[in-house]
Amino acid sequence: MDAVEKVNGIARFTGDLALPGMAYAKILRSLVPHAKLVRIDTSKAESLPGVITVLTRDDLADLNYHYGATYKDQSIVAVDKVRFVGDPIAAVLATDEAAAEQALAEIDVEYEELPSVTSIEEAIAPGAPLVHETESVKAELRGSKYGTPARFKGTNICYHFGYGRGDVEEGFKNSDYVFEDTFRFAKVQHYSLETHTSLAHFDAGKLTVWTACQDPFTLREHLAGIFNLPLSRVRVVVPLVGGAYGGKLYVKTEPIAAALSWKTGRPVKIALSVGESFKTVTRHPARVRIKTGVNKDGRLTTRECEIYMDTGAYADAGPRVTQKAGYRSLGPYRIPRTKVDAHGVYTNTVPAGAFRGFGAVQVTWAYESQMDLMAERMGIDRLEFRLKNLLKKGEAYTPGDTPVDCDLKEGLLKVAEALDWKRKPSSPNTGKGLSCCIKDGGGTYKVAESAVRMFADGSVVVETATVEVGQGSRTALSQVAAEELAVSLDRVSVAELDTNVTPYDVSTSASSSMTVMGLAVQRAAQDVKKQLLRAGAKVLGVRADRLTLKNGKVCSPKGRALPYSQVILDYYGGGGGIVGRGVYRDKKSKKALLGSPTTFWEVGWGGAEVEVDPDTGVIRILKYVSASDVGKAINPLQCEGQDEGGVMMALGHTLFEEMVYEDGQLLNPNLIDYRVPTFGDLPESFSSHLIENGNGPGPFGSKGMGEGGVLPVASAIASAVSDAVGVRIHDLPLTPPKIWRALRAKEKAERKAEQAKGINPTSL
Amino acid sequence: MDAVEKVNGIARFTGDLALPGMAYAKILRSLVPHAKLVRIDTSKAESLPGVITVLTRDDLADLNYHYGATYKDQSIVAVDKVRFVGDPIAAVLATDEAAAEQALAEIDVEYEELPSVTSIEEAIAPGAPLVHETESVKAELRGSKYGTPARFKGTNICYHFGYGRGDVEEGFKNSDYVFEDTFRFAKVQHYSLETHTSLAHFDAGKLTVWTACQDPFTLREHLAGIFNLPLSRVRVVVPLVGGAYGGKLYVKTEPIAAALSWKTGRPVKIALSVGESFKTVTRHPARVRIKTGVNKDGRLTTRECEIYMDTGAYADAGPRVTQKAGYRSLGPYRIPRTKVDAHGVYTNTVPAGAFRGFGAVQVTWAYESQMDLMAERMGIDRLEFRLKNLLKKGEAYTPGDTPVDCDLKEGLLKVAEALDWKRKPSSPNTGKGLSCCIKDGGGTYKVAESAVRMFADGSVVVETATVEVGQGSRTALSQVAAEELAVSLDRVSVAELDTNVTPYDVSTSASSSMTVMGLAVQRAAQDVKKQLLRAGAKVLGVRADRLTLKNGKVCSPKGRALPYSQVILDYYGGGGGIVGRGVYRDKKSKKALLGSPTTFWEVGWGGAEVEVDPDTGVIRILKYVSASDVGKAINPLQCEGQDEGGVMMALGHTLFEEMVYEDGQLLNPNLIDYRVPTFGDLPESFSSHLIENGNGPGPFGSKGMGEGGVLPVASAIASAVSDAVGVRIHDLPLTPPKIWRALRAKEKAERKAEQAKGINPTSL
Repeated sequence: MDAVEKVNGIARFTGDLALPGMAYAKILRSLVPHAKLVRIDTSKAESLPGVITVLTRDDLADLNYHYGATYKDQSIVAVDKVRFVGDPIAAVLATDEAAAEQALAEIDVEYEELPSVTSIEEAIAPGAPLVHETESVKAELRGSKYGTPARFKGTNICYHFGYGRGDVEEGFKNSDYVFEDTFRFAKVQHYSLETHTSLAHFDAGKLTVWTACQDPFTLREHLAGIFNLPLSRVRVVVPLVGGAYGGKLYVKTEPIAAALSWKTGRPVKIALSVGESFKTVTRHPARVRIKTGVNKDGRLTTRECEIYMDTGAYADAGPRVTQKAGYRSLGPYRIPRTKVDAHGVYTNTVPAGAFRGFGAVQVTWAYESQMDLMAERMGIDRLEFRLKNLLKKGEAYTPGDTPVDCDLKEGLLKVAEALDWKRKPSSPNTGKGLSCCIKDGGGTYKVAESAVRMFADGSVVVETATVEVGQGSRTALSQVAAEELAVSLDRVSVAELDTNVTPYDVSTSASSSMTVMGLAVQRAAQDVKKQLLRAGAKVLGVRADRLTLKNGKVCSPKGRALPYSQVILDYYGGGGGIVGRGVYRDKKSKKALLGSPTTFWEVGWGGAEVEVDPDTGVIRILKYVSASDVGKAINPLQCEGQDEGGVMMALGHTLFEEMVYEDGQLLNPNLIDYRVPTFGDLPESFSSHLIENGNGPGPFGSKGMGEGGVLPVASAIASAVSDAVGVRIHDLPLTPPKIWRALRAKEKAERKAEQAKGINPTSL
Repeated sequence: MDAVEKVNGIARFTGDLALPGMAYAKILRSLVPHAKLVRIDTSKAESLPGVITVLTRDDLADLNYHYGATYKDQSIVAVDKVRFVGDPIAAVLATDEAAAEQALAEIDVEYEELPSVTSIEEAIAPGAPLVHETESVKAELRGSKYGTPARFKGTNICYHFGYGRGDVEEGFKNSDYVFEDTFRFAKVQHYSLETHTSLAHFDAGKLTVWTACQDPFTLREHLAGIFNLPLSRVRVVVPLVGGAYGGKLYVKTEPIAAALSWKTGRPVKIALSVGESFKTVTRHPARVRIKTGVNKDGRLTTRECEIYMDTGAYADAGPRVTQKAGYRSLGPYRIPRTKVDAHGVYTNTVPAGAFRGFGAVQVTWAYESQMDLMAERMGIDRLEFRLKNLLKKGEAYTPGDTPVDCDLKEGLLKVAEALDWKRKPSSPNTGKGLSCCIKDGGGTYKVAESAVRMFADGSVVVETATVEVGQGSRTALSQVAAEELAVSLDRVSVAELDTNVTPYDVSTSASSSMTVMGLAVQRAAQDVKKQLLRAGAKVLGVRADRLTLKNGKVCSPKGRALPYSQVILDYYGGGGGIVGRGVYRDKKSKKALLGSPTTFWEVGWGGAEVEVDPDTGVIRILKYVSASDVGKAINPLQCEGQDEGGVMMALGHTLFEEMVYEDGQLLNPNLIDYRVPTFGDLPESFSSHLIENGNGPGPFGSKGMGEGGVLPVASAIASAVSDAVGVRIHDLPLTPPKIWRALRAKEKAERKAEQAKGINPTSL
């Protein structure tokens, strides 16, 4: 529905908005990874032409300036310390962007540098410098019963999530094999085409913020808290968003824009550069150690996972992501005994938060890689090994959670078939890999509300707080309303998202919208339908339950058909038409580990065939096959787009993407030194399979999708690389140098082994 | 609620809005009053730098380009004829206003001039040139049973409304006196501080229009018709409006802006100059002949009114205004026999439409002036004469209409008391006058809907399509919600007006909002209250009907008090809070002459004491007293402001305002030659009395107000002038030359009379 306006360039994003008197903000960011802030001198900057004001810690006294998605550990601008290179220290407001930018250089900051930690290893080492004096960080993880246990006080561990079933020590003792492997996932960035952009206007005791965000109601709540305002005086409006992927959840640049407007009364625009977005939020780097017990028959018996998630300098959504990583680390397999310990760790790096997959990407990389390693070690076919252990439809993932709602074998076999799994590769240095990943979908405890209006001419407007971030929600949700109300899609529009009037939604996240908001929209449309049929019954003199809706008409069994407009006019006699409301609310359950059973299971199957250049270590992806369990594809083309997009994004963290730190400095916060996938990186053959069994809880049997495709990519490709050239990389990304070195090391090892056997390989 | 932002200049009006790629439109207007359009050559204009396009009749083929509030007699730009000086012929779209303005001069228009009519007399003369070939104008006056009778075909009369009771010929025959007088009302302009301003964007099959308008839903319907769009694809957003007074009802500049955007895909802004607003809409000039029969005891017996309303070149709301003028011409008096004939007349002048008072201003001027004349002629005190004939509370105005809902004597006596009516003026050339006027208030068949949201923290947003035109509706409607929900006003906001989501309202007009929308808001708030009490009952374990709301808390009889936020959290467990809906709908009745009984009676009483300079004819207003029947003043300060504003506006048409035509040309479309009242014109003593008897149907006994104050001004002042210097002017405005000439004529007549008696006045 918004394709045309996007293609012809007239779609309005936050950056396109302007207000009279609008001024521009630029942020002064810390140049050092960890320091006490001794002095900030803004006098010179403030005297420059065009500069309106400079916001510093001195302005914050009247505000509740600490905020955070889970812990209130972040402040609008730094107060006593800076904690990463890029941490906001001050913000200049000027009449134009250039003046603001220039003034930044004239702010004099005196640091007292502190030792820093920029990796999990450094952060969890005994006696490591503390990013936060964690005792003072009050755990405020809402909606979770898991705080930070006392034993982690005085460390950089800000969160711990542990759970399990049965005695794992006993389990390992009784297993035929026990394998232990550690995998690493690099720090990567969302890179949305639209950077974090906000326009805030604090005006006569009311705050309005237009912003690129995924959860306007949560943002409203945070802003109301910071500025001591009732919710009715904070209005968050979200235009089209140019990509989000979790990076636009919770609170980002909005408090700085709002505080500058609060200080000056001017409308304030902030649009980050790409480099600044790199310094705003990232995906958690992770270290995942998995120890798995297996019996000779190939059945998993026991698993222990130790997970460290590097949440950077501020928690953001880190505790939640860590919890989900822990919860999602078991994989789609039947494992009788389990023990999981997931830790969130502070480091002096850019904060890590929500990112497409939300903890699942790191742990699926680990557990599926280990599945391949174990199969190889035991000499079992990697597909067979998985099939033997997959959970069946209806089996429990953990007790109390929603049972698995699809046939996990179906998708995996489809991928295997598409890869012609049994056929050996015809060329040298080529290999295949596949992967099967599962995550609890929809987010924990979602509430979504919607209103659907049918106007006097029978046309329809859908009110939804699902943010159109490029996923096509406007189209898909409109389709749901159009289908229920039997009108063509061109008679349906989606209203602007404005927290003052748009019905509530928790967030656009966790592949939830099609299910959660989809149901709310469907119910709202059904509410309209009910009223319309009731009106039709009066007008036509036929019982409502004998009437049907077809092509914009109320139809009687005897063939009379009145246009909706006529029914509305005759029955209501003028006015605004019909309004219907719909609500979706997840169940709460004390039996479910996370307090609320998952809405649906999101499953991603993937398989790759690759060729590795043994001289350069470069991976060529000959074929990629993705399969998703979508229940029912409301809009198949968009579903494929989502799935393909997920795979492409995952190719980034699989093959190239990594934010590199040296001496506390981030070396590559730009698209030259940090490489994201382009069209040139497309697999030579690429197919997406949508599996539709009508098994989803969403409208018409649909399920959420869009994250599933991301999950299997790294492990499938790493497995294919191993299959192709016999080297197994444990740490993403699979860069050519890393593979080249592994190949050289393997050759060296092979030579050594041959030499040990007395054979000179060069003579062969 | 919006005072601070207005005072500090950050309030956003349509003119403050900007969109990326926005272009500016200027309108080429006819220079002649009546002509066939032979040729329009835009080639030179289109080749100028900055010019994007020129819209002419050649672009209209795919649109339903005829539109109109009552008859579709107007087109986006002129097609075959131009009908007044100012009639839009073409519109230039350019990258900046100056380029657009310059290009206008380069459009070559060839006219074939036709004879024109610019006054009622010319227009109704036999054989007058026809402004429209009226046979071809299809009467489409919606909601009225009155079309244009066949006998007016082939004339400039475009509408006729006639009604009456009893045999007036018989009535006059049996009356002791019969008086017949004719009064004239001049063509005047609304002069809103904000001119007609619109921003339209036609984008991918959707039209969004931000505009200064009073009836966004009506406008939406018209635009949907013109552009063949479903209502859901036309979005009208109304920011704050800088004065409207009826001039921003129905369709004005929006179709030109929208058509240019439709043609080019660019967002298009049109902001008229003051001069152009003068050429867009005006108040109807009128000629009102009243013939009244009176008995010796001073009781009215019979009245015949013949009304001609000059609706200019296009009908706009003319038929409706004419209908209302006719209906309102009886005055607040008991008259057993009546006959009214009201005619709408086309002339080659700027169209006339809705204007504060809507036909009542012209007829109250006439009937109250005649009341004074009749009293003088019969030697009865003007106050006594009125008191003798006033309708009583509960008496019918016309059969089937709502009975008079207040004590008409009360206000009139209050005015008389404030003027010290019985005391003779102490200075020469001073005099007093008073007036009592009534109109059916609220508009005919109003529907208003509202939603009230209580968010999770107990703060409140009101959704209303009442346009804030400066009358203070946001504050007053918020007060109603705050009162019902027992929250302070600073916790209430009003949502942006957007036809996609804001509940329906017919229009902001006819002093209706406080009653009609007030009830919708009150009912929506009561709906919230009901839900909140139900939730509170569950949470507190107390029956809902025993709970009360106080200071943002649900209170039990035993003194427990839970904040709303707690009740909402406990009962709903998260989400968006509570939404309540409210609807108001006027009754329909076949017994009522206009199809729907009036919502309430709006009464305005006014009295003036003036001093007339006999040498210059200048009127000095020593004192003005206004009284309004408001039922209950929701916001007394704003009510006084409305009443004072109404009086001041009426001082304009009473004393100076008149759009002057000569040879078909409008001579004074600017604020130099056309004079509106300024602070210097304030009466030396000025008081407003709000009469509060709780007799209104609105929230808390309130009634609509804001037009009542306008009505008595002209007749009260003319009466005071007559009382002061003995001259009676029948044609507004009461300009110094007019009075001076009347004084000279009077002196001459007196001299003649004296000479006839043989007395030489100079010797006295």
